[in-house]
Amino acid sequence: MSDKKLIYEVNNLSMDNDALMVNETIFHNANGYIGIRSNFEEGYPDGYTTIRGAYINGFYDITEMKQAEKLYGLTEEKQTMLNVADTQTIQLFLDGEKFSLFDGKALSYSRFVDMEKGITGRKAVWRSQSGREVEVLIKRMASFHQLSLFTIEYAVTAINFDGSLTFVSTHTGEVMNYSNPDDPRVAGESSDYLIPEEAILEEGVSYLTSGTLRSGLSVCTGVKNILSRDGSMHTELKGHKAVCTMNTFIARGETAVVTKYTVFSDSIRQQDCKSFAVKEMQKALSLPLKEFYTRQKAYLAHFWENCYLEIDGDDALSLAVRFNMYQLIQSVGKDEYGNIAAKGLSGEGYEGHYFWDTEMYIHPFFILTMPEIAKSLIAYRYRILDYARENAKILGHKKGALYPWRTIMGKECSGYYPSGSAAYHINGDIAYSVIIYFLATKDLDFIAEKGGEIIFETARLWMDAGNFYKGQFRINEVTGPDEYTCMVNNNYYTNVSAQFNLRWAVKFYRMLAEENKLETVLDKTGLSEEEIKQFEQAAENMYLPYDDTLRINPQDDSFLEKEIWDIKNTPKENFPLLLHYHPLYLYRHQVCKQADTVLAHFIFEDAQSLETIRNSFEYYEKITTHDSSLSTCIFSIAASKLGYKEKAYGYFGDSAKLDLFNTHRNTKDGIHTANMGGNYMAIVYGFAGLRIKEKGLYLAPYLPRPWNGYRFKINYENSRIKVEVVKNQCRITLLSGSGKQIFLYGKEYELRKNIIVTL
Amino acid sequence: MSDKKLIYEVNNLSMDNDALMVNETIFHNANGYIGIRSNFEEGYPDGYTTIRGAYINGFYDITEMKQAEKLYGLTEEKQTMLNVADTQTIQLFLDGEKFSLFDGKALSYSRFVDMEKGITGRKAVWRSQSGREVEVLIKRMASFHQLSLFTIEYAVTAINFDGSLTFVSTHTGEVMNYSNPDDPRVAGESSDYLIPEEAILEEGVSYLTSGTLRSGLSVCTGVKNILSRDGSMHTELKGHKAVCTMNTFIARGETAVVTKYTVFSDSIRQQDCKSFAVKEMQKALSLPLKEFYTRQKAYLAHFWENCYLEIDGDDALSLAVRFNMYQLIQSVGKDEYGNIAAKGLSGEGYEGHYFWDTEMYIHPFFILTMPEIAKSLIAYRYRILDYARENAKILGHKKGALYPWRTIMGKECSGYYPSGSAAYHINGDIAYSVIIYFLATKDLDFIAEKGGEIIFETARLWMDAGNFYKGQFRINEVTGPDEYTCMVNNNYYTNVSAQFNLRWAVKFYRMLAEENKLETVLDKTGLSEEEIKQFEQAAENMYLPYDDTLRINPQDDSFLEKEIWDIKNTPKENFPLLLHYHPLYLYRHQVCKQADTVLAHFIFEDAQSLETIRNSFEYYEKITTHDSSLSTCIFSIAASKLGYKEKAYGYFGDSAKLDLFNTHRNTKDGIHTANMGGNYMAIVYGFAGLRIKEKGLYLAPYLPRPWNGYRFKINYENSRIKVEVVKNQCRITLLSGSGKQIFLYGKEYELRKNIIVTL
Repeated sequence: MSDKKLIYEVNNLSMDNDALMVNETIFHNANGYIGIRSNFEEGYPDGYTTIRGAYINGFYDITEMKQAEKLYGLTEEKQTMLNVADTQTIQLFLDGEKFSLFDGKALSYSRFVDMEKGITGRKAVWRSQSGREVEVLIKRMASFHQLSLFTIEYAVTAINFDGSLTFVSTHTGEVMNYSNPDDPRVAGESSDYLIPEEAILEEGVSYLTSGTLRSGLSVCTGVKNILSRDGSMHTELKGHKAVCTMNTFIARGETAVVTKYTVFSDSIRQQDCKSFAVKEMQKALSLPLKEFYTRQKAYLAHFWENCYLEIDGDDALSLAVRFNMYQLIQSVGKDEYGNIAAKGLSGEGYEGHYFWDTEMYIHPFFILTMPEIAKSLIAYRYRILDYARENAKILGHKKGALYPWRTIMGKECSGYYPSGSAAYHINGDIAYSVIIYFLATKDLDFIAEKGGEIIFETARLWMDAGNFYKGQFRINEVTGPDEYTCMVNNNYYTNVSAQFNLRWAVKFYRMLAEENKLETVLDKTGLSEEEIKQFEQAAENMYLPYDDTLRINPQDDSFLEKEIWDIKNTPKENFPLLLHYHPLYLYRHQVCKQADTVLAHFIFEDAQSLETIRNSFEYYEKITTHDSSLSTCIFSIAASKLGYKEKAYGYFGDSAKLDLFNTHRNTKDGIHTANMGGNYMAIVYGFAGLRIKEKGLYLAPYLPRPWNGYRFKINYENSRIKVEVVKNQCRITLLSGSGKQIFLYGKEYELRKNIIVTL
Repeated sequence: MSDKKLIYEVNNLSMDNDALMVNETIFHNANGYIGIRSNFEEGYPDGYTTIRGAYINGFYDITEMKQAEKLYGLTEEKQTMLNVADTQTIQLFLDGEKFSLFDGKALSYSRFVDMEKGITGRKAVWRSQSGREVEVLIKRMASFHQLSLFTIEYAVTAINFDGSLTFVSTHTGEVMNYSNPDDPRVAGESSDYLIPEEAILEEGVSYLTSGTLRSGLSVCTGVKNILSRDGSMHTELKGHKAVCTMNTFIARGETAVVTKYTVFSDSIRQQDCKSFAVKEMQKALSLPLKEFYTRQKAYLAHFWENCYLEIDGDDALSLAVRFNMYQLIQSVGKDEYGNIAAKGLSGEGYEGHYFWDTEMYIHPFFILTMPEIAKSLIAYRYRILDYARENAKILGHKKGALYPWRTIMGKECSGYYPSGSAAYHINGDIAYSVIIYFLATKDLDFIAEKGGEIIFETARLWMDAGNFYKGQFRINEVTGPDEYTCMVNNNYYTNVSAQFNLRWAVKFYRMLAEENKLETVLDKTGLSEEEIKQFEQAAENMYLPYDDTLRINPQDDSFLEKEIWDIKNTPKENFPLLLHYHPLYLYRHQVCKQADTVLAHFIFEDAQSLETIRNSFEYYEKITTHDSSLSTCIFSIAASKLGYKEKAYGYFGDSAKLDLFNTHRNTKDGIHTANMGGNYMAIVYGFAGLRIKEKGLYLAPYLPRPWNGYRFKINYENSRIKVEVVKNQCRITLLSGSGKQIFLYGKEYELRKNIIVTL
């Protein structure tokens, strides 16, 4: 792709506090291990709010979360992703005058994220109150090549004066997380999580090591400043803080550059995180920064090739889609210790927790573009399986594993279980991702080693949570995806995904048996043939609610008996409803926060007739508020499937713009990674109708009216396949790997070189 | 009644800490305004736990109750009944040797509650380590004549020595409430609620005034010590504490008595609580203590006459029943500022909150024995009606009033709404008590003035909470009495009580219209004819779930679809289940904490056929754990109605002994007032089959096999009626008032003088 298509640059930026905080998110740098919000190096004036943070994927402390009334098994503590250090602070003085865009005059000013190069930046031509003019260009990078590394390259050019430049670059471990007691979507309490352990200067590098208050973890950050020209440099330690003051004399037209290297290291991944930080800093300093830029670009070239997606006809939307994909590679963990948080590594919303978002919204992106990452996401779930077993016990179950609704290290973090722990569908979601991983890769060894154990333990849980009643297997007292209806019986989505889970437990069992690969998992689980028979029986007799009158699948047993919420006559300012109505009142009505049955119809489309799916879509569309960011992308896919092309495009557009336009008004707390994955899905699974099924790959592409064409590449069973759609034609090309049987518009084809279908 | 039948005296008392704490409750003194736990005046040794408390009915502070996750409308603060002062401390020294039952040797020792005299006491003959022997007799009284007054009469007789006696009598405002973070049934947090305002000595009386931290209330306690003989007396103020030291010389055989008067006064009831305390102390000191004893006895003679109940054949059980009735008169508020807490004024369990216990378990006792108190209990509900209107709004309702599930001053205190605010049946319960009050008194003026407004506003709430579906009026997402099943649709109990509420709203409207008494309530509520029609329609079409196969009323729409809990094979130590299982797991099963549909069948017995009632009883009995103290009494009544006499007597016995035998293992936190009312009901509504219906009074007495006979008196429409049951005969006598039509064993009689039926 060309430069231009991968650069998001904004001029005329608002200096309004709210806008600044949104941009801290939009322009953040992350690489899946670390994430640094794009705060101004020099800070804001007093009285401004900022969420100044740097995060490590999977690094947490534990916070007490007292229940208003204590009941058995309710979660009483949670994990919080920590703001680990502030290494981005640099203050600049021109002959003692402090650089600040809030003072003097910005003659020009812009910010950008360059998704080809993997950097963000801030550019300004600025005149101080006394008339000194400088050009400032600040580039920031979270390195994909060396995951521990974050760099700031801070270049200052004197335009109209000769004089002294002073840079004061700070590194501090005295940081706190952001809190807002009035917003349920971020932490409500502020707390000092980090206890200083060691502050030391070694070879010009400040290393600050801190321990967490309760989780017993340590983090070390190392910072090294390099000044590009002659001058003085002095670093001083003050408590758990290092201040490096650099002075240089600059003549008109000259440029001075400070390069600030930060390395992050944590005790989850490293035995001795301080020693590791020293090694990582040595590694960082052993190559010129330019080389890191080159490798960053190379990494991303590979990424963009893997998730190649071109749209002809709407550049703004194309850019938004690429922005979303870019955020996914920035956010996703690259090892089994980190997953992908609801807000990635861009902010503190939902406290850095991992949700089902991973499996149902983000996994479908990576499975087609970088299956190794999809596999790593499952490996994380495997790593926390013992916690899921423990969680099942807490919830009363005698066997099986129940994944926590929200977590970092594996224990449940839901304070409000009706729309937390009660969301048993998380088990089905994780099982689904394992099954889809298998279908897309045929990697049975991974099933034998890890995936199978997940499938069997989640299947067991359904057997304990459900019960037979009048010959049908039913699952009571659970919450489906829609959080405006909680603790119901036979949520359609839950039951159909439990059925899938149980069926595949049986299939995997038979497959592994056939391949003599059962031993490991049997050793670990003690699974018996008898249980497999029970799985089969429960799956076969799974109750899937259906309403004869409306000819739809009711969201749950009693959903249709409730009063329909009057969305049209609800004042605009009362959305999202969850911030304005008591949960009981919401639960008493037919109103959906998000796709629920509609999502089930997308992922299990063969469970119902097209007519039922159509009726359901039309029914639920009227009562869905899309207060959740996980909704419009799914409605877009569903609309595509049903041939509602205008609608599909409309929902897709809503999804594409969510963060760049801050349409949910909380992008300051971080990006919405699930929506970003969903936005990709709206194209590939929606417009192009892609499905991964047991029989093979399915495609049914159409061209949205506003576009001239679109193209994308995917991985499937180690083959690379390109899909191109233009007016009147769809072309499928096998780029590499072995030939495949594929289903195009429902018809089976042998894909050897390419297939061209005229529309 | 004779002395003996009204004295509960225990020798050989355990000095085990748990037993001591239970006895603090059992022997507490209260009069409906104040309650003082029966702590040892001299305290326990170090390391012992005690709940040393004195409480004022309705006097509270506010505590923050943070929700683990913030959601709209969830309660974030609660009221807590305060321990207001410690005025019971008296230490005794014999020639410097401290009196303590934990040292030396108790040659005899007993405690008693004398329910004829209205006092409790402790008697001991004690030998000190050095061999000094004394007889100690301590009598305590919370005066019914002067509600502000609590007295301790502390008499010491020297048995085998001459020497000095020192009494150190303390009065302190530096007190805290009891807390236990591990038990959901008491406060989880400790807090200094009271801030000292004034400590002053006036005419030998120490007055301590304190203000609450958050509720803006004040409390004043005044203490005066009087020594019966010559000696020295010195009172000193130290901070918010007054210490009175009394010395006297005593010869062998002589007795010294300290009388300690305490008056309590609060700013809810008094403008200036300090001045009021002064007046009350003057009043207390203006009469000799003997006179207060006389009036106490007279008050109780009246009480025992009003609630006359004699059982021939089981003295122990008779005593237990009278103990229960006595606790009710001790606990019940005597004005509209205080109601009756779940634990009365005997302890801090449930933090002094008022629940539906009042209306469904205690009101039925007072309506038959002291209708003025029943009226006062309703007046309290009327006083908090505006808070109930506000609560309805918080829960999303556009009209009506929704009473808080637990409260002191009127605002909801439930931290866990699924078994708190969701218990909408509280509205039906309060409406029921108003209707029964009317039926038992025909006091239409009270309906015009207060009761009607309650009925209309609760009726309105049902209209907003429910909805028509397929022609039936349904009420979704509520919790019935059984707290092991929450947030269900069409709880039978809730729907049938809503129906009763709605029907009576219509009836009262018509009655008041006919008597030209509608004006006040119309002014206050703006009620329209149109609404009355809607009430009528909803009541007429109320959906009452019925199962054709089992021929029972299911507890709610989906109750019967759930798995039946295996009570028999649940380990004994896992009861009460709520302390051992996650709520979701409980809710997913057919298991009841308490009577729910069975209670509905008792209070609305005409809503179903006897066959259905019988089937329901048999069905629910098998799955009810009686983990709630509100359960066995109702099962007893239901069993009586169905002719299961052995069962009825068994359940009655369980109920009778609950506190005296500490069968629920939490009597240390206070008595179970609802069970105490229920225990009376098990006799009068159970064995004697009493019902108050629109058509009149119903009776159908039978004699429990272990008894030779029983007799009781009731008030009904200003007449006094006596019911006597012996083997083969039932006699109903009109003691005073006008004649009544009554229904005896289903047959209508004119009660003029008496009716005798041979059984």
